[in-house]
Amino acid sequence: MLSIAILLYEGFTALDAVGPYEVLASLENAKVTFIAENKGEIRSDTKSLGVVADASLSEVPKPDIIVIPGGATTPQAAANQTILAWLKEAHQTSLWTTSVCTGSFVLGAAGLLKGKTITTHWAAQSHVESLCQAKYSEQRFIQEGKIITAAGVSAGIDMALYLVSQVKNQETAESIQLALEYDPKPPFSQGSFSEAKQTSIDGAKHVLQERPK
Amino acid sequence: MLSIAILLYEGFTALDAVGPYEVLASLENAKVTFIAENKGEIRSDTKSLGVVADASLSEVPKPDIIVIPGGATTPQAAANQTILAWLKEAHQTSLWTTSVCTGSFVLGAAGLLKGKTITTHWAAQSHVESLCQAKYSEQRFIQEGKIITAAGVSAGIDMALYLVSQVKNQETAESIQLALEYDPKPPFSQGSFSEAKQTSIDGAKHVLQERPK
Repeated sequence: MLSIAILLYEGFTALDAVGPYEVLASLENAKVTFIAENKGEIRSDTKSLGVVADASLSEVPKPDIIVIPGGATTPQAAANQTILAWLKEAHQTSLWTTSVCTGSFVLGAAGLLKGKTITTHWAAQSHVESLCQAKYSEQRFIQEGKIITAAGVSAGIDMALYLVSQVKNQETAESIQLALEYDPKPPFSQGSFSEAKQTSIDGAKHVLQERPK
Repeated sequence: MLSIAILLYEGFTALDAVGPYEVLASLENAKVTFIAENKGEIRSDTKSLGVVADASLSEVPKPDIIVIPGGATTPQAAANQTILAWLKEAHQTSLWTTSVCTGSFVLGAAGLLKGKTITTHWAAQSHVESLCQAKYSEQRFIQEGKIITAAGVSAGIDMALYLVSQVKNQETAESIQLALEYDPKPPFSQGSFSEAKQTSIDGAKHVLQERPK
């Protein structure tokens, strides 16, 4: 039985967590557990969504796969000594330690990204060197050994499909992709920072700023 | 203030709901509310995720946008008279009434899809005629008047971006797309039923069957 732990903390971005969940929970012989410092309801960054942490960190000390989502409050999560102590310990025995979006800063604060090339949300790239002692690259996800960092929000879905191919095989990943009908057809073409128009960049920064902190 | 209601029911598929949520909650002057027959924690189809319904149906009688996710238990939701009565009434005044995945069957049970061309999860296409008196088409999402039906699970993200372009404008949709770094790069190419290999179709059916009901 593969044990998968997805971290929740007040102010997390819901899709960062639920994208990988939907993919990984489709694996047979796997158990996904949403965990947090304390059990119970955790509100997302917009405050309009509550997700339940079914276990505390100490109840899931040795997950095989760790997923750390990003959020508006990642700096607080990355300064939370209980989370960092758990993560450092859990990383010792994990098969895979992963982040989505600014979840990378929690990995960075735990000292796991030193000297690595990583990705995170494009709007946070300028903090990668100081917070993670790592180098940013605009990729959908980046594997360095057993650590995988994914780009902003929606990138966790792509990362999780890759992860399935690694813990199981490509056929299983393809089956899950089809089960989730993951044949993305964005109606617009402004998803990539390096290819975005300036108006989209300004607009996106405004969207990110307007989200509650 | 735009009022957006996302329906929850025991056994819903989480990404069906959280994909559109993440996009629509990024709108300024909009309020997303997760609703259910009764307030409180609702478990997803895999049972490993609990999401909180912050309001009961009767507390949100006239949302501007209705989003109905699919799930393993859609037949029960589509037979729930409280849900159907609420939906029929709410649809009278909604600006947009939408479904993701098999959420379409709830719209169908409320009599909203008669004679229309709709989409749903590919694996459920054979039920569209009998349950919805509608015609299935394999598209990412289909608009018929103020009703939009989206394909399986992940298609709700694409649908919601389109919805933003309609309730606001394309620039806002593009800004939200970039804010969510929605530049999907599936590592595999088996997301579309009509283009999938038979092994992926068999595998996906197995994945869907193994999910708890």
